[in-house]
Amino acid sequence: MTNQNENKQYEHITRVRVPLYDVDLGQGLYHGNYYHLFEIARDRFFRDMGFPYKGLMDMERHLSVVEAGCKYKKSLRYDDEADIHTSLLWMRTRSLGISQKIFRTEADGHSVLCTELSLNMVCTRFSGGAATLPPDFVKCLQDRTGIASRV
Amino acid sequence: MTNQNENKQYEHITRVRVPLYDVDLGQGLYHGNYYHLFEIARDRFFRDMGFPYKGLMDMERHLSVVEAGCKYKKSLRYDDEADIHTSLLWMRTRSLGISQKIFRTEADGHSVLCTELSLNMVCTRFSGGAATLPPDFVKCLQDRTGIASRV
Amino acid sequence: MTNQNENKQYEHITRVRVPLYDVDLGQGLYHGNYYHLFEIARDRFFRDMGFPYKGLMDMERHLSVVEAGCKYKKSLRYDDEADIHTSLLWMRTRSLGISQKIFRTEADGHSVLCTELSLNMVCTRFSGGAATLPPDFVKCLQDRTGIASRV
Amino acid sequence: MTNQNENKQYEHITRVRVPLYDVDLGQGLYHGNYYHLFEIARDRFFRDMGFPYKGLMDMERHLSVVEAGCKYKKSLRYDDEADIHTSLLWMRTRSLGISQKIFRTEADGHSVLCTELSLNMVCTRFSGGAATLPPDFVKCLQDRTGIASRV
Repeated sequence: MTNQNENKQYEHITRVRVPLYDVDLGQGLYHGNYYHLFEIARDRFFRDMGFPYKGLMDMERHLSVVEAGCKYKKSLRYDDEADIHTSLLWMRTRSLGISQKIFRTEADGHSVLCTELSLNMVCTRFSGGAATLPPDFVKCLQDRTGIASRV
Repeated sequence: MTNQNENKQYEHITRVRVPLYDVDLGQGLYHGNYYHLFEIARDRFFRDMGFPYKGLMDMERHLSVVEAGCKYKKSLRYDDEADIHTSLLWMRTRSLGISQKIFRTEADGHSVLCTELSLNMVCTRFSGGAATLPPDFVKCLQDRTGIASRV
Repeated sequence: MTNQNENKQYEHITRVRVPLYDVDLGQGLYHGNYYHLFEIARDRFFRDMGFPYKGLMDMERHLSVVEAGCKYKKSLRYDDEADIHTSLLWMRTRSLGISQKIFRTEADGHSVLCTELSLNMVCTRFSGGAATLPPDFVKCLQDRTGIASRV
Repeated sequence: MTNQNENKQYEHITRVRVPLYDVDLGQGLYHGNYYHLFEIARDRFFRDMGFPYKGLMDMERHLSVVEAGCKYKKSLRYDDEADIHTSLLWMRTRSLGISQKIFRTEADGHSVLCTELSLNMVCTRFSGGAATLPPDFVKCLQDRTGIASRV
């Protein structure tokens, strides 16, 4: 059942604190700098999957962002502590989709959804051009998230 | 006719050069840093409309990004010269939609679409909360783009 | 004895990991982005002193950098783990001096000094102009570091 | 006479406008982001010398910053127009020294020195290690600035 699978899907959580240097003159995190927090969370996600991003780079591969859609619902401010939830949505031979959500815990203990990101990434070679995702990388993600690569 | 209107729509063009500090270890512009180039182009767009963004700030208003979707088709690299095309898509009482496209001129003189952005922004007060877009701001944009604010 | 005091001086250590987005096309941390890591370390330093930087901002004060000298001895690279050592050097009525050093632990366990920063900061009001450092802030730093404010 | 030479030294001027995304929550340009403006000015400086930085990269060389000292005298703010003055101070076989100053023109037409940077850079290979500055690069700088490489 789709719903069941969705409910059971692996979700990785990283706690971050909004740094001063990413906040702009409007007192909120600059919209382009949310990608810094998302990057840190994905970095920990891949590491915790058992295949750090650095391992991809050692194979002369990158994951290049080809599409990103972001909804900024509530501003994040300097010194806010926030939890970033990262989920793998799908994998194909050379690409994958990721969802990331940032929640801030308010003073009353209530957790508020601030930001939602949907990201499509393609595996690329350092020398240029798309490449298949390394089998070990796919296996790590599949084993931990339960999401199989589909053709 | 929608198509006709779309063809005739005002399009503002800004030429930029990709700075070294925005390029990441993969040799392409970092995906979050495209927002720097888009920002520079919107800044010139508003200035050329006759209402610089600084004028909004003097009224204690910001335009806050609430949704952004970006397609990265071709990487931009250090020292690339690129043209950013900026168009107003729509205006409402407190919000507006903008489309921005980055084109790079290749060595053979051919122009290639590299990046496409769709942006929704809301007018906000420095003190917090949404605000109506200042009438003079709306008038400037309407006069130059031909796009009327709709309720 | 000056040397003795220097040897005994309080040194705060923060472990950081170099994020991908701060690394430039030369594969090393961009020289301007070292200030991100230094900022994170100072933020934790002030928090651990018992007076978070946010507390200064709640009093409508900033610490503004007026002079910074940095020696880049060894590049930091993506995914490097590094320890940032932060020391208060001196305090005056309205200013303070800080020293920060970044050490990377090499594969052989040896620790290598990569970067050295010397920073002078002045306390400023949100409304502009220099201000005295808040007495509670001075007391926290003095109690923990043993460095007295001098006139 | 040293003084005479200094007075006559070649000074390159680049006009920039402070972008919104580089300004922090204190309303001034973030201290680490001044390096963005300095970088843009050096980029134009080398281009105008007749040897764009990209030309160095085509030879698999970088200029790596090894020491930077910056005095922040007056804050730069969003939308400020400023002139960056760039001068070559000295060249050696594998390194060079540069001075950069940012001046803002005030409303009354008076020009104010805001920021002073002193920068030491070393020529490095993409593959690592220091390298001699390419002879053509040295010749371009020497011809335009009158500053000879010294051993």
